[in-house]
Amino acid sequence: MKEQNISRATIDRLPLYFRTLRLAQDEGIDIISSETLGNRLNITPEQIRKDLTSFGQFGKKGVGYYVNELKRCIGDILGLNNHWNIAVIGIGHLGEALANYQNFASMGFNLVALFDTDKEIIGRVVSHIRVSDMTDLKQIIEEKNISIGVIAVPAQFAQAVADQLVEAGIRGIWNFAPVKMDVPASVQLVNEDLSVGLSRLSYFISSARDSQ
Amino acid sequence: MKEQNISRATIDRLPLYFRTLRLAQDEGIDIISSETLGNRLNITPEQIRKDLTSFGQFGKKGVGYYVNELKRCIGDILGLNNHWNIAVIGIGHLGEALANYQNFASMGFNLVALFDTDKEIIGRVVSHIRVSDMTDLKQIIEEKNISIGVIAVPAQFAQAVADQLVEAGIRGIWNFAPVKMDVPASVQLVNEDLSVGLSRLSYFISSARDSQ
Repeated sequence: MKEQNISRATIDRLPLYFRTLRLAQDEGIDIISSETLGNRLNITPEQIRKDLTSFGQFGKKGVGYYVNELKRCIGDILGLNNHWNIAVIGIGHLGEALANYQNFASMGFNLVALFDTDKEIIGRVVSHIRVSDMTDLKQIIEEKNISIGVIAVPAQFAQAVADQLVEAGIRGIWNFAPVKMDVPASVQLVNEDLSVGLSRLSYFISSARDSQ
Repeated sequence: MKEQNISRATIDRLPLYFRTLRLAQDEGIDIISSETLGNRLNITPEQIRKDLTSFGQFGKKGVGYYVNELKRCIGDILGLNNHWNIAVIGIGHLGEALANYQNFASMGFNLVALFDTDKEIIGRVVSHIRVSDMTDLKQIIEEKNISIGVIAVPAQFAQAVADQLVEAGIRGIWNFAPVKMDVPASVQLVNEDLSVGLSRLSYFISSARDSQ
């Protein structure tokens, strides 16, 4: 099922397909056309067919895709069916927002631990989970089989937190701090930069204005 | 300076270039090579040269790019030099995290208003701005010349907020709510889906495991 050489752009679209298929499943839809999928996602049907044919045949020609089958397959490709356990480090506003983000659970991620260094925050319950002390990080990551660490601490502390996560045996880091982070090649790193979305919007507004 | 037919992938990389150039500028660097830029961003020098040549000549062959000139040009392309005024709607944890996000200011966006419907939240001061009542949205958007609305409300309220923003004459919406939103073609919409980053990480971890 796993394919090599999937483009980054396609990998970025797969979670959108997965989520749309899940919503379609909830609506009781069995078969969905590339036109309907495209309309729900603002992606052309041609692009969708191109993305999905690279993974094999899930469609019924002239009718559409089998929702359950396609969703399961995309979940397999993305590794979502592993139901990774995740931890959020840094329970400020961003960390708390991430801990409460409903979409993660619906994508198959299990939030199982929260960490902070602030005595005022340790012990608080957020999203049904008690915030742990950073000094217990390694022990809890091992005990709870946590694969993914989400870094939501201020920039100046981010590398030190990453080092602790690596030392604790984490497999992936999702970093929200605006820093260039160094981790060993064995640990997967995805940097989330919120200013990218806002800059894209700025670009679109500028282009629209120029063409008016 | 404005170019047509810039790929979405290139537009997504431009803010990363802009930010890295800004940091280089802060460090007093006048000329930067595509190798150094690439190393700071985990992007190949070939990709960087390809992205940047499409906008014209900013480099000194065999030496590197002029930092100030290239940064100003990318800022022009992205429309960042317009210094858009923005408002955040929904001051829960996500809204408060966004209001406090330092990177927006450094990219040239001015946060000038915050809105909520909750009487407990209206009047609070977040990031030096007093939270306004949603009933004053249209008036404040006009008075403060706000171009971009950031939607950080729960999913079920997101479309109604978007409708109010459109009615108030907003030019761009940056939507964090996990819903398919309808806005007129004259309003630019960028949907931010945080589960995409986490799913990408899941994919990388799964691929790494498979290849071990």
